[in-house]
Amino acid sequence: MNKSQLVSTIHKKQSFLCVGLDTDINLIPKHLLQHADPIFEFNKAIIDATHDLAIGYKPNLAFYESMGLKGWASLEKTMDYLAQYKDSIFTIADAKRGDIGNTSKMYAKTFFEHFNFDSVTVAPYMGEDSVTPFLGYKDKFVILLGLTSNKGSSDFQFFETGEGKLYERVIKKAQEWATPEQLMFVIGATHPEEFKHIRALAPDYFFLVPGVGAQGGDMEKICENGLNKECGLIINSARQIIYASNDEDFADAARANALSVQIQMSKYLNALTA
Amino acid sequence: MNKSQLVSTIHKKQSFLCVGLDTDINLIPKHLLQHADPIFEFNKAIIDATHDLAIGYKPNLAFYESMGLKGWASLEKTMDYLAQYKDSIFTIADAKRGDIGNTSKMYAKTFFEHFNFDSVTVAPYMGEDSVTPFLGYKDKFVILLGLTSNKGSSDFQFFETGEGKLYERVIKKAQEWATPEQLMFVIGATHPEEFKHIRALAPDYFFLVPGVGAQGGDMEKICENGLNKECGLIINSARQIIYASNDEDFADAARANALSVQIQMSKYLNALTA
Repeated sequence: MNKSQLVSTIHKKQSFLCVGLDTDINLIPKHLLQHADPIFEFNKAIIDATHDLAIGYKPNLAFYESMGLKGWASLEKTMDYLAQYKDSIFTIADAKRGDIGNTSKMYAKTFFEHFNFDSVTVAPYMGEDSVTPFLGYKDKFVILLGLTSNKGSSDFQFFETGEGKLYERVIKKAQEWATPEQLMFVIGATHPEEFKHIRALAPDYFFLVPGVGAQGGDMEKICENGLNKECGLIINSARQIIYASNDEDFADAARANALSVQIQMSKYLNALTA
Repeated sequence: MNKSQLVSTIHKKQSFLCVGLDTDINLIPKHLLQHADPIFEFNKAIIDATHDLAIGYKPNLAFYESMGLKGWASLEKTMDYLAQYKDSIFTIADAKRGDIGNTSKMYAKTFFEHFNFDSVTVAPYMGEDSVTPFLGYKDKFVILLGLTSNKGSSDFQFFETGEGKLYERVIKKAQEWATPEQLMFVIGATHPEEFKHIRALAPDYFFLVPGVGAQGGDMEKICENGLNKECGLIINSARQIIYASNDEDFADAARANALSVQIQMSKYLNALTA
């Protein structure tokens, strides 16, 4: 999926919600455990219940890897299932990879070829040649960590470097490597006060915004400060949606929560085009 | 494996060589392709030929992940095979993970419980809570990226922050989180001139040193500047050893190259204890 398809999906669905598939075998409803692949059954039900309200899904790789071969298989099946929505759903491998060039090339192959994700999250610490191998794919995106949502984001990302804070310089430098057609940034929802200023640093780039909901991010302020003329935001919500209920009604409960987020989002999108 | 076992293994084997298992299906000898699992057959032969000369093995996760389920299975078999040497071989998952707390916890589970690695490489950008979940395991190590071996290391790691360069502050800050019993640093071999100074910053911590060989690092200078009284270095070599030949004699050729590195290393270790 390229950027203009993403933008048109957002406006068509009146949503910029991404559902985080942080699927944990210990948290899904017990009745699913009778299936051969409970993780996939859960994901499938969540996708069935929300695919018209969400514009993307973001499997968190750690949750799949921690189950070994089984988890890897669940992820493959989930991506195969999502393939039917390839024109209306943007997929994000939340992998936070980043390594020397020849290794990053292997990771790019994994996520863009093997799994056919539209995008992958990448850590910036190792610099340009750890990022560029992911940029060799047309209509695929690197989503680079800019300012993260966790408490530890304050350990290094706010360091003053003489020409701005570390995270600001990451956002500025990376724009020399790729256009908004290939690059987005992770900007955590727990820093709403920074959004206006970050939007000014990267006016045309999409931001993937985790941390709304369970981590406490404030959606209203983020939209006010972070939207650009095309939208420019993908807001991720995981626990709040996928674990809305852990009973047999979990998919309906997920849909209800996704719907309430989508309604809120449609107001912001309407205001944009008004 | 804990630190004193690692140190005693190093002195017993007169080696601080780690063999990087960057096993690529396109680079291994063709005659192995007839096996059901060529990647494992290759790793097994390399391990058989070098386990008395090396003190560790470092599978690079990207190479396994890029093969999907099959690659994951090859890695499981390799780790199962290495279990026979658990008292004399230190295993490193070169994964460069790092995420918010509850996600890092899943990664820790993957590498320390599922695969039973002794250590995992971790990226520092997201700060303390992305690292601490890995520290909850006894006799397991986080190997944090300090100064990496690639060209892109100069993009951010050398930023002046007022109280030292970014990589220096990562190395200083992380020492507040963990002792040398649980933490090591990745220091790339391509910066030999920095080793004296980095050793002074973290006198008692082990450094994992990639980039000797194919990436051009200078082993002599690194040893002169980087060794501490216990040794304190694990030097990784991948391509130079595992791809010493791509013919039927590949394991013998790998052994010959490992032996020549080990002989060099024994001189440095002898000088230490002299």
